[in-house]
Amino acid sequence: MTNNSSIKFTRGVPAVESFPTAQLAECATTVLAEHSDVVLQYGKARGFPLLCEQIAHMQGVDTDRVIVGQGSLQLLDLIARMLFQPGSLVYAEDPSYDRTITILRRAGGHVVGFPLSKDGLDVEAVAARLKAGEIPVCLYIIPDFQNPSGSVLSFEKRQRLVQLARDYEFWIIEDVPYRRLRYRGDDIPTCFSMAPERVIQMSSYSKQICPGIRVGYAITPDLLKAQLAKMAEDTYISPSYFDQAVVYEFIRRGWLEPQIERLKALYAPRLDMTLAVLAETMIDLGTWTHPDGGFFIGLTLDGPINTDALLARARDANLFLTDGRGFFTASGENFVRLPFCALTPDEIEEGIVRLAEVVRKVK
Amino acid sequence: MTNNSSIKFTRGVPAVESFPTAQLAECATTVLAEHSDVVLQYGKARGFPLLCEQIAHMQGVDTDRVIVGQGSLQLLDLIARMLFQPGSLVYAEDPSYDRTITILRRAGGHVVGFPLSKDGLDVEAVAARLKAGEIPVCLYIIPDFQNPSGSVLSFEKRQRLVQLARDYEFWIIEDVPYRRLRYRGDDIPTCFSMAPERVIQMSSYSKQICPGIRVGYAITPDLLKAQLAKMAEDTYISPSYFDQAVVYEFIRRGWLEPQIERLKALYAPRLDMTLAVLAETMIDLGTWTHPDGGFFIGLTLDGPINTDALLARARDANLFLTDGRGFFTASGENFVRLPFCALTPDEIEEGIVRLAEVVRKVK
Repeated sequence: MTNNSSIKFTRGVPAVESFPTAQLAECATTVLAEHSDVVLQYGKARGFPLLCEQIAHMQGVDTDRVIVGQGSLQLLDLIARMLFQPGSLVYAEDPSYDRTITILRRAGGHVVGFPLSKDGLDVEAVAARLKAGEIPVCLYIIPDFQNPSGSVLSFEKRQRLVQLARDYEFWIIEDVPYRRLRYRGDDIPTCFSMAPERVIQMSSYSKQICPGIRVGYAITPDLLKAQLAKMAEDTYISPSYFDQAVVYEFIRRGWLEPQIERLKALYAPRLDMTLAVLAETMIDLGTWTHPDGGFFIGLTLDGPINTDALLARARDANLFLTDGRGFFTASGENFVRLPFCALTPDEIEEGIVRLAEVVRKVK
Repeated sequence: MTNNSSIKFTRGVPAVESFPTAQLAECATTVLAEHSDVVLQYGKARGFPLLCEQIAHMQGVDTDRVIVGQGSLQLLDLIARMLFQPGSLVYAEDPSYDRTITILRRAGGHVVGFPLSKDGLDVEAVAARLKAGEIPVCLYIIPDFQNPSGSVLSFEKRQRLVQLARDYEFWIIEDVPYRRLRYRGDDIPTCFSMAPERVIQMSSYSKQICPGIRVGYAITPDLLKAQLAKMAEDTYISPSYFDQAVVYEFIRRGWLEPQIERLKALYAPRLDMTLAVLAETMIDLGTWTHPDGGFFIGLTLDGPINTDALLARARDANLFLTDGRGFFTASGENFVRLPFCALTPDEIEEGIVRLAEVVRKVK
């Protein structure tokens, strides 16, 4: 690659070369041949029934607790509008996924962030605030390979959070789009598995298959399932059964697990390259997370940093970054999210070398 | 058909036998072969660029005024949330599409309905209210083969409404999903064609191709286009490019116009049968619209009617109706929507005969 090509550390998108295009074409042909009466018509807002059943079976829950929509963010919008009144208190990790913060606030939520360390958010700070009587409607977390930091919530903290949710009766919204993309080490049990009556779990096939076929889902406690389905129906009648049937067929054929293995083989070297080049070039400039999976490494530059200058200088070097401040409820000037999956190892190396140069210039 | 089979005059769904299944399978295969890099990835919230261009070309507008989403109802939800504050005044036809009323109210709108006659809503009542200083944020209309009444807004009234929108500076939201399904007579120019700077036009391919591939669009005035695209991005990142690319390919191959001709050939006899059986069986029981297109005939029973009894007696006869009250801002006890497209002529005949019997019983 030439030194002038543009490099984008902006959005967390999957690698185009990971898309199982030919398989998806086969699935599309099959579902139209076998299920067109259902797939091409309006249907229940909850989603294509065969996919709902499949997800329910994989997750070990009753089918009517599953709702499948046009990506999980859209479902989060419905959930927030269903749960919130203007000014509703919401707890979140700080930093968190910028689009989520926007959704929660737009639905009336007053978002309070709790700082992250490498084993997840500060649970004792959450406990103290609860004890002081500030009970949120919900806590939003991305426990596995968090967006944007890459951090993983420890088992102990998950247990403690679940207990707090039970004691103080708030919902945990557990968003796990990266969970299956663990490149090494062992899975940690989800909060959902510990307290299915207190946790809304959300995930999607955007990172596992592709985002352009928009299929995400939520599994809700019994108490919320009917109201959420009504919200969905009132908003879009029914989601794309065509998209959902294609995902159903992909899973039915046994293609999901091999696809995830291919993704791991593609992405693990990209994670390793990112970590290696950071260690070579930025050891005196900041600290960063060392995730075992997912899409992101969170880099915290040694302060003080003029973020606007950093972004502008990076652009001058044909290097595109997302403003770190967007991930925080406040501050975030020193934070750089590094999504590594959609870049080749060469691009990653070049990108981080450029980033180190830019940081040295603005410091 | 046997006399016991269930007959559904409930939702306005297209006929399953109208779906161009084999053609859609070809389109899906083609777009994955030719555009997978774009189609399977995240993209601009505005929609699959080639479809946006195609719609813009067909409608004679700049591409950036087109936004394509998961059906037009979902876009209406975004538009309402973008335009409204709590208590915002909204004008609508009375009756109107029940799902729209729900969306407008949920977004904070205070919906004021204006009665319909066979040439559309009472425009002089609108003018009087405007003159009295009650200026709405927007007026929502379905000018062609209205849902649920089947009525068509006259050319003169369209001109007058457009002038009022200009004078009093409110938006007209013109929803035209049935416009292309005219079985006889001539098109009337849209409000959008008269005042593209004051009208948001919405439509979808649900009635023209199929609903299960969820593709609807809005064309907005320049003043609103950026804000609406941001609302969409903040809600679902990007819509299903896969669905949208399939529709694009269907249109590109020149298949849309023949498909619409097939629909007309299928639906026109169903409209005729509905009108004929109504004239045979219900002449002493009520009045109804005589549309030249669309999905619906609006039947107004001679009052008084106990609606709950009507619906229950109909169910006893295995005849399913939608509660007419849901279409009105108030009242609607005597109203029955008759969607005729998804029933065969035999089913229509049997259904209306049953309906007449039920009405005689509850009167």
